[in-house]
Amino acid sequence: MPRIEVAFSPTLFQHFEKDGKIVVVVDILRATTVITTMFHNGVKEIIPVRSIDEAQEYKQKGFLVVAERNGQKLDFADFGNSPFYFTPQTVMGKTIVYSTTNGTNAITMGKDAQEVIIGSFLNISAIQSYLYARSHDILIMCAGWKGKFCLEDAIFAGALSQRLLESGRFETICDSTHAAIDLWQVAKSDLPGYLEKVAQRHRLKKLGLDDVIEFCFTPDVSDVIPVLKGDKLVALV
Amino acid sequence: MPRIEVAFSPTLFQHFEKDGKIVVVVDILRATTVITTMFHNGVKEIIPVRSIDEAQEYKQKGFLVVAERNGQKLDFADFGNSPFYFTPQTVMGKTIVYSTTNGTNAITMGKDAQEVIIGSFLNISAIQSYLYARSHDILIMCAGWKGKFCLEDAIFAGALSQRLLESGRFETICDSTHAAIDLWQVAKSDLPGYLEKVAQRHRLKKLGLDDVIEFCFTPDVSDVIPVLKGDKLVALV
Repeated sequence: MPRIEVAFSPTLFQHFEKDGKIVVVVDILRATTVITTMFHNGVKEIIPVRSIDEAQEYKQKGFLVVAERNGQKLDFADFGNSPFYFTPQTVMGKTIVYSTTNGTNAITMGKDAQEVIIGSFLNISAIQSYLYARSHDILIMCAGWKGKFCLEDAIFAGALSQRLLESGRFETICDSTHAAIDLWQVAKSDLPGYLEKVAQRHRLKKLGLDDVIEFCFTPDVSDVIPVLKGDKLVALV
Repeated sequence: MPRIEVAFSPTLFQHFEKDGKIVVVVDILRATTVITTMFHNGVKEIIPVRSIDEAQEYKQKGFLVVAERNGQKLDFADFGNSPFYFTPQTVMGKTIVYSTTNGTNAITMGKDAQEVIIGSFLNISAIQSYLYARSHDILIMCAGWKGKFCLEDAIFAGALSQRLLESGRFETICDSTHAAIDLWQVAKSDLPGYLEKVAQRHRLKKLGLDDVIEFCFTPDVSDVIPVLKGDKLVALV
């Protein structure tokens, strides 16, 4: 039976076998929520880049660039990292270069795996159905915060793991997966209250960027499954 | 007000500031439980060493050596890693060299901090009282399993953090600390049942070494506080 594992941060990802696994990258506040939104609204492809230098080079070549560090849009970029920027009018059919504090690093680290897909509450049921169909070992990689554990990605990992385990089609012997599920169980009965513990929620609030919180925890807004093909994210069709 | 943070594994420890902090190293199954037991039973000092080579060199020089990898005693060593070996008759007044899969690595990594102490359920109240008195920032470092998160260390971190926060003398803005407390809250009402999720419990069971489980989760067996002084652990007096 295929197994589920959870890496609570990109730094922990190094300790897991990747061969033959599907890696689900999670950065709820905000990268994977934003990426899901972009594909839902018709973006053609997203090029995730780790460094600011790379993002600037793409900008000079004429690409549309989203670049953010510590929550804030970088001056040279076309957009910051709120999902609300990326309406169909803005992204339909476009190629967008994307660089954020944690999420894009996590995505590019996944390359050794068989497959890398992008998960968020927005597409959680689509991801769940896809993983049922693929029936592979799964490694959920939380983007975390600057290498550290973060709660919002952990509870998503728990929500997804619990759905998969309850199907009876997956199993786990991974302590992080058990912990993620326990945290989701604690969080889900009062999610807005629980989010008061989340440091990233307070960082965004300080920057006046916390209008996205409710949206980032809304399930099943979209059926898209963004997937890494080479160096680019595209929508699975 | 001093703050509490939790690093869920030695790999995550690199992302935390250490300056001026007291690091509490935790490896419930079994290194820090064993170390607490040794000092409770009168060991003079413990020399934690990371590599098997170092442990063998000490053995050749005539030291008593505890060495274990993946749960099992190494052939050249005098003892494996069960707390039950270390009676007063065995350890009183002795110097013991100590090398284990996760715990000794974590202890030696703590050296950049102001102070490194050893925590386990066996001395949790003594640790709590000591940390009240010192009133410093605290970083609880879980030894984990081969760099990964493990549940048993996380729930200890939660138990200790909760006691400290409830005193009103500490605060936290650390997601890992909130998560550890939530996991402890889930675990504590049925600890034996909860431990079924713990991978290390099953590893030890397979090796016939799980007779230690109950002891490793017994609070307040001892008042000793092992502390790192230079390259050696000694009992704080």
